[in-house]
Amino acid sequence: MNTQTRLVEVRQKVLKQNDVVARALRQRFNDAGVRVISLVSSPGSGKTMFLERVLTLLAKRHRVAALVGDLATDNDAQRLARSGAPVRQIVTGTVCHLEAQMVQDALEGWDLDSLDYLFIENVGNLVCPASYDLGEAHRLVLFSVTEGEDKPLKYPTIFNTADVAVITKMDLAAAVGFDRAAAHANILAVRPGMQIFELSAKTGEGLEEWLQTIESPQPVSAG
Amino acid sequence: MNTQTRLVEVRQKVLKQNDVVARALRQRFNDAGVRVISLVSSPGSGKTMFLERVLTLLAKRHRVAALVGDLATDNDAQRLARSGAPVRQIVTGTVCHLEAQMVQDALEGWDLDSLDYLFIENVGNLVCPASYDLGEAHRLVLFSVTEGEDKPLKYPTIFNTADVAVITKMDLAAAVGFDRAAAHANILAVRPGMQIFELSAKTGEGLEEWLQTIESPQPVSAG
Repeated sequence: MNTQTRLVEVRQKVLKQNDVVARALRQRFNDAGVRVISLVSSPGSGKTMFLERVLTLLAKRHRVAALVGDLATDNDAQRLARSGAPVRQIVTGTVCHLEAQMVQDALEGWDLDSLDYLFIENVGNLVCPASYDLGEAHRLVLFSVTEGEDKPLKYPTIFNTADVAVITKMDLAAAVGFDRAAAHANILAVRPGMQIFELSAKTGEGLEEWLQTIESPQPVSAG
Repeated sequence: MNTQTRLVEVRQKVLKQNDVVARALRQRFNDAGVRVISLVSSPGSGKTMFLERVLTLLAKRHRVAALVGDLATDNDAQRLARSGAPVRQIVTGTVCHLEAQMVQDALEGWDLDSLDYLFIENVGNLVCPASYDLGEAHRLVLFSVTEGEDKPLKYPTIFNTADVAVITKMDLAAAVGFDRAAAHANILAVRPGMQIFELSAKTGEGLEEWLQTIESPQPVSAG
């Protein structure tokens, strides 16, 4: 058995262990009646600005909180805290994704019964987070108009593990010559029937439309 | 010994094995007199468009070729082949980075003596590629003005393992309110003295300036 084979085997054990923790988390979230939404995307696609706007808007009518993952710095937690919602930073060091155990540890001392919504912002990465269930009810994959319409084809797994696709930075669509039809076709080629939202956190365009689906009793899921 | 500890140990063995292959590659590149330049960045920062322009310009006066890594699709290889340079795609499946062995396999049948420059475009990822030496002489980390000026602080390791930073999509700087001073300060905070280039592959602005350093007998290195 060579090193590569062993690496895969040990990784599978870690993944299985993650699934056990994620399943327990999901049960806990359900029991507490908190809706948990996670966000994945490449670095710089606008996750944090999106979340900042969402927290600010939702905090007016619900009890919301957020966990945010990064390799280093607590910049994002500081930014998100301006929304008034409780926010905790998970620093992963050199790990390219969040794991269920990190989420469980970060929740210590928080009363989940006092929350309606919990957002989990993953590390900016279109590969690694795909393999790790965090116990969330709903996973969003974001990609910005500046990244190129081909991203779903090049990173199919992350689109397959997400429930909804959100195209961000629509205010820049004209400046970068964003090809809307190609972007939609590529998302649907990878995940037929996937629900797609287009918005700009900067201008607010499209935000309320997405919020409505999140606030509805039964959020639409392509799962 | 728990699973996590074993994972780290096995991963270290894989890394060591990678270093052995990378060292042999570097010697081969030196012997053949080919200058090897690798590119790392997040997805959508403009690596492929940058490389397309660079190959087209360099091919007029040198013998150039490229290897390009992606999880899926050979879109990038097809795009880059328009430059007229020989290009090979490395499809990594679910692996979030290139490894030295993948580079070695992809080079099979290529006569390195007939090349002046070889470019290696890594998988779009700001985390995993940092750990893998590919035998290159020079590593560029690219990030675009649309990604946010804080990326060096959030992904310090990848900036630390690179020789030069290239800020891309400068044509969009005004549209996104790019804070040039903050971006430079953040790069230099992570890697003091790092050489920084600013360019736009779309307009061509800044490209020749970078090419001059690559074509000089002794490229400037911050290493």
